[in-house]
Amino acid sequence: MSFNTFGHLFRVTTWGESHGPALGATVDGCPPGVALDAGMIQTWLDKRKPGQNRHTTQRREPDEVEILSGVYDGQTTGTPIQLMIRNVDQRSKDYGNIADTFRPGHADITYYQKYGLRDPRGGGRSSARETAARVAAGGVARAVLGQLLPDLHILGYMVQMGPHHIDRARFDMDEIARNPFWVPDAQAAEDWAKVLDTMRSDRNSVGATIEVVAKGLPAGIGAPIYAKLDTELAAAMMSINAVKGVEIGAGMDAAALTGVDNADEIDMGAEGPEYRSNKAGGILGGISTGQDVVVRFAVKPTSSITTPRESILRDGSPNSVVTKGRHDPCVGIRAVPVAEAMMACVLLDQVLMQRAQTGVAGPVGVIG
Amino acid sequence: MSFNTFGHLFRVTTWGESHGPALGATVDGCPPGVALDAGMIQTWLDKRKPGQNRHTTQRREPDEVEILSGVYDGQTTGTPIQLMIRNVDQRSKDYGNIADTFRPGHADITYYQKYGLRDPRGGGRSSARETAARVAAGGVARAVLGQLLPDLHILGYMVQMGPHHIDRARFDMDEIARNPFWVPDAQAAEDWAKVLDTMRSDRNSVGATIEVVAKGLPAGIGAPIYAKLDTELAAAMMSINAVKGVEIGAGMDAAALTGVDNADEIDMGAEGPEYRSNKAGGILGGISTGQDVVVRFAVKPTSSITTPRESILRDGSPNSVVTKGRHDPCVGIRAVPVAEAMMACVLLDQVLMQRAQTGVAGPVGVIG
Amino acid sequence: MSFNTFGHLFRVTTWGESHGPALGATVDGCPPGVALDAGMIQTWLDKRKPGQNRHTTQRREPDEVEILSGVYDGQTTGTPIQLMIRNVDQRSKDYGNIADTFRPGHADITYYQKYGLRDPRGGGRSSARETAARVAAGGVARAVLGQLLPDLHILGYMVQMGPHHIDRARFDMDEIARNPFWVPDAQAAEDWAKVLDTMRSDRNSVGATIEVVAKGLPAGIGAPIYAKLDTELAAAMMSINAVKGVEIGAGMDAAALTGVDNADEIDMGAEGPEYRSNKAGGILGGISTGQDVVVRFAVKPTSSITTPRESILRDGSPNSVVTKGRHDPCVGIRAVPVAEAMMACVLLDQVLMQRAQTGVAGPVGVIG
Amino acid sequence: MSFNTFGHLFRVTTWGESHGPALGATVDGCPPGVALDAGMIQTWLDKRKPGQNRHTTQRREPDEVEILSGVYDGQTTGTPIQLMIRNVDQRSKDYGNIADTFRPGHADITYYQKYGLRDPRGGGRSSARETAARVAAGGVARAVLGQLLPDLHILGYMVQMGPHHIDRARFDMDEIARNPFWVPDAQAAEDWAKVLDTMRSDRNSVGATIEVVAKGLPAGIGAPIYAKLDTELAAAMMSINAVKGVEIGAGMDAAALTGVDNADEIDMGAEGPEYRSNKAGGILGGISTGQDVVVRFAVKPTSSITTPRESILRDGSPNSVVTKGRHDPCVGIRAVPVAEAMMACVLLDQVLMQRAQTGVAGPVGVIG
Repeated sequence: MSFNTFGHLFRVTTWGESHGPALGATVDGCPPGVALDAGMIQTWLDKRKPGQNRHTTQRREPDEVEILSGVYDGQTTGTPIQLMIRNVDQRSKDYGNIADTFRPGHADITYYQKYGLRDPRGGGRSSARETAARVAAGGVARAVLGQLLPDLHILGYMVQMGPHHIDRARFDMDEIARNPFWVPDAQAAEDWAKVLDTMRSDRNSVGATIEVVAKGLPAGIGAPIYAKLDTELAAAMMSINAVKGVEIGAGMDAAALTGVDNADEIDMGAEGPEYRSNKAGGILGGISTGQDVVVRFAVKPTSSITTPRESILRDGSPNSVVTKGRHDPCVGIRAVPVAEAMMACVLLDQVLMQRAQTGVAGPVGVIG
Repeated sequence: MSFNTFGHLFRVTTWGESHGPALGATVDGCPPGVALDAGMIQTWLDKRKPGQNRHTTQRREPDEVEILSGVYDGQTTGTPIQLMIRNVDQRSKDYGNIADTFRPGHADITYYQKYGLRDPRGGGRSSARETAARVAAGGVARAVLGQLLPDLHILGYMVQMGPHHIDRARFDMDEIARNPFWVPDAQAAEDWAKVLDTMRSDRNSVGATIEVVAKGLPAGIGAPIYAKLDTELAAAMMSINAVKGVEIGAGMDAAALTGVDNADEIDMGAEGPEYRSNKAGGILGGISTGQDVVVRFAVKPTSSITTPRESILRDGSPNSVVTKGRHDPCVGIRAVPVAEAMMACVLLDQVLMQRAQTGVAGPVGVIG
Repeated sequence: MSFNTFGHLFRVTTWGESHGPALGATVDGCPPGVALDAGMIQTWLDKRKPGQNRHTTQRREPDEVEILSGVYDGQTTGTPIQLMIRNVDQRSKDYGNIADTFRPGHADITYYQKYGLRDPRGGGRSSARETAARVAAGGVARAVLGQLLPDLHILGYMVQMGPHHIDRARFDMDEIARNPFWVPDAQAAEDWAKVLDTMRSDRNSVGATIEVVAKGLPAGIGAPIYAKLDTELAAAMMSINAVKGVEIGAGMDAAALTGVDNADEIDMGAEGPEYRSNKAGGILGGISTGQDVVVRFAVKPTSSITTPRESILRDGSPNSVVTKGRHDPCVGIRAVPVAEAMMACVLLDQVLMQRAQTGVAGPVGVIG
Repeated sequence: MSFNTFGHLFRVTTWGESHGPALGATVDGCPPGVALDAGMIQTWLDKRKPGQNRHTTQRREPDEVEILSGVYDGQTTGTPIQLMIRNVDQRSKDYGNIADTFRPGHADITYYQKYGLRDPRGGGRSSARETAARVAAGGVARAVLGQLLPDLHILGYMVQMGPHHIDRARFDMDEIARNPFWVPDAQAAEDWAKVLDTMRSDRNSVGATIEVVAKGLPAGIGAPIYAKLDTELAAAMMSINAVKGVEIGAGMDAAALTGVDNADEIDMGAEGPEYRSNKAGGILGGISTGQDVVVRFAVKPTSSITTPRESILRDGSPNSVVTKGRHDPCVGIRAVPVAEAMMACVLLDQVLMQRAQTGVAGPVGVIG
């Protein structure tokens, strides 16, 4: 219904179905005068694009973005930016047999119960294809952030696939872009390739955990009480398909800590406060501390598997479901660029809000 | 700044500081004709009220709610409901020494960096006292839900304190209201009392995990894509003070599962679809399945501890901080009724949204 | 900036510039299951389309709408509806000489002062071409209203062109569609054609007043205090290009009335209350009475005229401006279908809001 | 329902009924660090306060504002400001006989039809008493505007009472505060006093037109397309009780003008563009030009009159209504400070929005 928009001042409305003619994002609230062209957005879309290796869906979508408005002569105009991506490879016959079946773990059944409709061509609006539009919008957000906060860097990567965690001792940022899993651990990349091959031959799939970090965000960003930075990030990540949990900093493990252990003690550094640890994930009271902002989220295993699962048909009769089609054995992989895009959008939105209301009565809090 | 409101149609704006004259909630969007009086709201506030046993802060606040508008003759009028709670026991002298200190783990430092102000009387708006207003608003939501969905029950309880988990085999719903920890396990209640006593004598504090369950929510509730039921619940819980992680259903553990294990298989029951398991936590594609909606969140240990922690003063000079005052050794305890209230508000909001747009063109999806 | 959306539950975001590749509307919040196809929307666009007679701009735009999402198999799906209209006849060379000139009465100067940009191709986002997107969105709203309120009729028409008023004694609803001015008075249509011919030969233009009436709206629609039905209609009409005044019922003339004359006395009719007059324009306290809802608004004369007007260039030097291009001598004419579309969107939005919150605690107020 | 809030970044939610214990405004989005105390707000409330002369209602409300949150030590903190005004003189017995009567011209009937409720104590939420909360919120807006735009002045005054217009040749700004009508024409003040005395003895009432002007607003303020400055002002004024029409600049008279006459020609002045006239009312394309922003609106005559008017009872039976109580013979008088407050809120909101998004990529458009 009318909740396909996120953001307060940098507002993104995504539209389009998995098997319709096109999908896209209407981006409202982009400041004027920022350098932007389709190529800058395409870079990020290419990162998410399916079919780039054997570990993601073999659906062949070029995901070419067209800018229909809001940019003139290589600059944003301050008016809505319409980003359109044509669907090309909608092999809806793959889905021919699902029109009356409710696939376990899919939104088929709840969409039907809510809207009274089944799109026999596939997941429709609940498909992860919708996230292409988010990545495109994230490209706009990054262009603006590049202008406002040149030192800000947003980086997502996988830290767990199924029960297999990365080894933080082997953490190598440069490794992330070298493997199909966006994993900062060369050994894990190698191991996980085998895990996925096994999953595929087992007609099974596997979950994952992704971490997204923003480096270089200044202190003071965040809008208490109900648009706290962590609140907004939690909502942004939870809105991504298949996500079941979101953590900031110490996350769920914070429950097991004591106050003495959890305190991020503070020293005065050359350029401001410095923290001895980052249990808080860079956010206190919903406002950034200036440390790395650290978000993690868990993605459930792909529900589309070719192992039969018991379910029912629309008429209530029992039905054993095997979901064919071209599906990712680990949807977590393609969630990485999506999560980066969502973080970019949230941070820009928060920074714009900050600009609106601070400094009205003079400079804000300076320490030291 | 202007983000002290949550909800789309049932909109709650909380206001007030920990040490100001009063705090409260402005509730807009409450349907007319619903039975409501101050006593119905007071019931829930009393549950959250501090100082009821030795395990929560000894600040003595009666937390008496006054309804200033929106209710006439025991019924809601459809106009804004103003709920006011006077602060009574603001012993701000307890905080006399914190005006220039940044307490590790507190929002002192980030509020100062954002707003340029320090409230020397205590946590101001970032204090957990703000949650009293949420509980009051939740009382209104529950009254309306009672009318719309008489079979809906919302129940929160602690499942972990520090490293100590409940034993699910001993789960006893009736136990929850009998102990100061809202824990459904009598043995845990006994053990945890000792843990907390130790924490206090150690000048330390401890984290916790809370689970909140909604039973009896019909299928079809939730507003994709960016106001999904799980998205809204994640935001609601993450907005509560000290929360660092939120999970739906299998939560972070979903990452370790395979697709075969994660599938909640479906049978046709007498009254509709029945699921053999609930890894999804009652939500698929952001829409309720009709199963229990299961949310969990982790609360970090209280940052206010009397063990000294290293920090800095406003001028940047180093300072060892001991936070006196009357603080909960485990803030997770009082988060239980707050989380219930937040869930009530989110569910009502989603149900109202559902009423707006469904059934326009006839009945929605019926199965069987 | 981020204010290209209107509506609360039926949300319309228009996008696109006068001389860009396309423009359109992203419609979020349309209920599912409503019959809709491009033809139903095209009907309304054709009514607004320029170049249909000698009295409107000779720019030849087919204004063909393409539905890119949200409709499947002739029915709305409840997901965002993307409506795209390609620009075809952008003769931007017409505007070659305006890049550095500020045309009196145009938004050139204020857009430049706000955004720091000039689009040398024409009015960009401030052009009345944006209203094509509104008309398309209005077509969606009408389809839904047809389902919800089959007896509702929305009709706009001109009542004044320059100093020339219609003769209410000659009011003939059937005449409206027969003349290029949407005027319900055959004699006026004939006279005004001559007025416009004179205007054109005089290198001048003329203002107009439009009236829009909704018949068949039930009593009880409207959302006090700040989304009153009249408030929303005033905002909707004032947002149309060149509008300088909006009236409800007696409008500005209400100032001259006495309380005795202004009272719309009430009788009990067979189907509910009946009013002896309609000074209120069908709205009391922001809520519909069940009478005709009557809105009027004034459109200023087209600012693009070929009579030279004094102005300045971007560098501040004086410049006499003659605005060439293909402009309507009376923009009020094409405002008629736009105003109808805006009213359709506002009424649907209000009706959806009404559905959300009434009847929760039983039937609402019945009279008699 | 949930529409008791206005503003985008400076958000005001008013609450409270005419005969409840209190009313007020929750102001969210006020920047921190601005000097503010109750006295600064009281100044504006005193201007609106009823019973100050024989021409306004004799209800004796001290309208004393209490600041419950958001201000500490004489400065705003950036958190919500709760402004409460206790009702003191609720003589609801005056209304004893109206519980089952629908008063012509009042919202009694439509509120009943919408909400199913009658508040037998008076107009409830539809009473003009609600506007006291707006005036209080406007006081906050003025404090912030004083910091941001020290040269901005907002001034409202009556220009018409019943059929009697002021003589613009006698316009004297200093006269406004000297008479009970806020009229800038000493002779009109004298004449109108007699008109009102006659109205009262005739058991009648009279309408009015108010003009509100903002001087000193810089060019470039306004948020196209659907939060244009004129759109927002139109909505703000139309939301005030009894308003039936709103005009910007030339207003409804713009319809009768030609393009040649309507063009506000531009010269280059010492400090920027200067306009030879102000038909546009200081707004082009929804954005301020730097000229005076000029808004006018018509208020209908008070519907509460002691001349009997025909109506019906709740059961549908006929009833002749005489509205006793303590009512203003010309509600337009007290609308003056309300309109000023609304303009202050709208302008601040627009200025804050402007701060968010401009200057991201360098300075915006400079002329000359």
